Amino acid sequence: MMSWVNVLDAIGTMAFAASGALIGVKKQMDVFGVVVLGLVTAIGGGIIRDVILDSLPPYVFVHNLDIIIAIITSIIVFISPKSIENRRLFFYFDAMGLGVFSAIGVSKAIDCHMSFIGSIILGTITAVAGGMIRDVLSAEIPLVLKKEIYASACVVGTSLFYVLDLLKLNTSVNLFICTFIIFVLRVIAFSKNWQLPRKIL
Amino acid sequence: MMSWVNVLDAIGTMAFAASGALIGVKKQMDVFGVVVLGLVTAIGGGIIRDVILDSLPPYVFVHNLDIIIAIITSIIVFISPKSIENRRLFFYFDAMGLGVFSAIGVSKAIDCHMSFIGSIILGTITAVAGGMIRDVLSAEIPLVLKKEIYASACVVGTSLFYVLDLLKLNTSVNLFICTFIIFVLRVIAFSKNWQLPRKIL
Amino acid sequence: MMSWVNVLDAIGTMAFAASGALIGVKKQMDVFGVVVLGLVTAIGGGIIRDVILDSLPPYVFVHNLDIIIAIITSIIVFISPKSIENRRLFFYFDAMGLGVFSAIGVSKAIDCHMSFIGSIILGTITAVAGGMIRDVLSAEIPLVLKKEIYASACVVGTSLFYVLDLLKLNTSVNLFICTFIIFVLRVIAFSKNWQLPRKIL
Repeated sequence: MMSWVNVLDAIGTMAFAASGALIGVKKQMDVFGVVVLGLVTAIGGGIIRDVILDSLPPYVFVHNLDIIIAIITSIIVFISPKSIENRRLFFYFDAMGLGVFSAIGVSKAIDCHMSFIGSIILGTITAVAGGMIRDVLSAEIPLVLKKEIYASACVVGTSLFYVLDLLKLNTSVNLFICTFIIFVLRVIAFSKNWQLPRKIL
Repeated sequence: MMSWVNVLDAIGTMAFAASGALIGVKKQMDVFGVVVLGLVTAIGGGIIRDVILDSLPPYVFVHNLDIIIAIITSIIVFISPKSIENRRLFFYFDAMGLGVFSAIGVSKAIDCHMSFIGSIILGTITAVAGGMIRDVLSAEIPLVLKKEIYASACVVGTSLFYVLDLLKLNTSVNLFICTFIIFVLRVIAFSKNWQLPRKIL
Repeated sequence: MMSWVNVLDAIGTMAFAASGALIGVKKQMDVFGVVVLGLVTAIGGGIIRDVILDSLPPYVFVHNLDIIIAIITSIIVFISPKSIENRRLFFYFDAMGLGVFSAIGVSKAIDCHMSFIGSIILGTITAVAGGMIRDVLSAEIPLVLKKEIYASACVVGTSLFYVLDLLKLNTSVNLFICTFIIFVLRVIAFSKNWQLPRKIL
């Protein structure tokens, strides 16, 4: 893949690991727990995708760069959690990760001949399943199921990618469009506090 | 497989998705969360079975019918949760799903040359693991571990299937007997409020 | 593998199953729930390792001995939970399991050509992931993320195994050294109440 994908992937890995590590610190975990939470948040989604696609061992176990980034980030957050809390920049990094992880996921799913609906699900899993495992390990209901436009941005972006791919457009352009749309949707939704509908029982 | 298996499979998928979606609504999840809970409840068990059997990508990702049924059911439950709450019919549908999912699971496990004990476990996982993931994502202890005759009916039915299969009886008859026994056990146990023993510490 | 590995593996399986079953009893689960908790604690880590290593079906589904040991142990604990509570011996058995499971895991990972960091992670997953699933199914934050020297002993022991393996030393000697180091670290850490650093926010 093109190198901008690798750069955004590294930035996203950092942001996801930081979000996991921060919750670990808040839940009074020790340094091992903080690193585990950072790791699963950053690489959990990609591992589940690769298991379902029968692409084993998972990519991240073959090329360890993301594991190393996630461990180092988690240790930095453990040492200095205030360095990232409430930082606007980290929100943008997280949104970039959301976009690029979805784009990579849907692209791999299509390479493995998944259907439209399977590709959307796998792209979205790549981006959000790590955060869900993070919340389950913190004994909380996953945030992504409860509030904000987050996973739904992935559904929109990955659907668009699938359609563009059907049209035989250039893959790296498609990856960029998918990543960009998800990033923009996430940023706008957050700043305007958009929410998906919820039921009042 | 015979078509009655497909029909019961579709009914069970609907019932399992509805049970997941209903919990999502009760836990104040947004529509995305409700669909995720419906989906994992309906298809989670089969995915874990296929991963263990090395039958990847999982069946449900190759034939998407169950995914589509689960998503549509979840959206209907989100729009109108009262339509299914406390409905006797849904209890029967759920019990049918319990039976047919177990029967499909144990049959696939035997096809993959699993042992007696492995086949029982995989049949039972097919039927109950989705509901366990649903409860974990709701930050609750899985219901199936705590009360009622539910998974234990699957253990009985799948053991019977394994024995009948050893006797070289007709597979579709075995599937029917296994499904029927589990359905009946579940219905009787529920109406008589049978419980497995629990320890008073 | 040598027979002492098999003996320690059986002892560890018993101790891990007992720890899971005991939590099941305390959480007021029925006998089915107690057996499930014992089973996942004993065999969950090895299954995740085998999925990641693409060594499917998982070893424990091909050779059922550990499954049988875990089920029998769980039923005994259900019948007589006081027989194991607070017993010093079970702490030692658990520490042996921690050591030998890590050693088996890192050795399999190296056989599958995993990197240094991948091998450490897989060795540690083999030893601690079952206990993490146990705690998640009990709606608790995994103990291993919060306190005591537990998984960190696995990281030390498996790192040592990797280095010894690079030096082409005899594998069964390496397995023994790795198991022994983890056992000793765990026992000393527990008796001296060593803790990993935690952050005060």
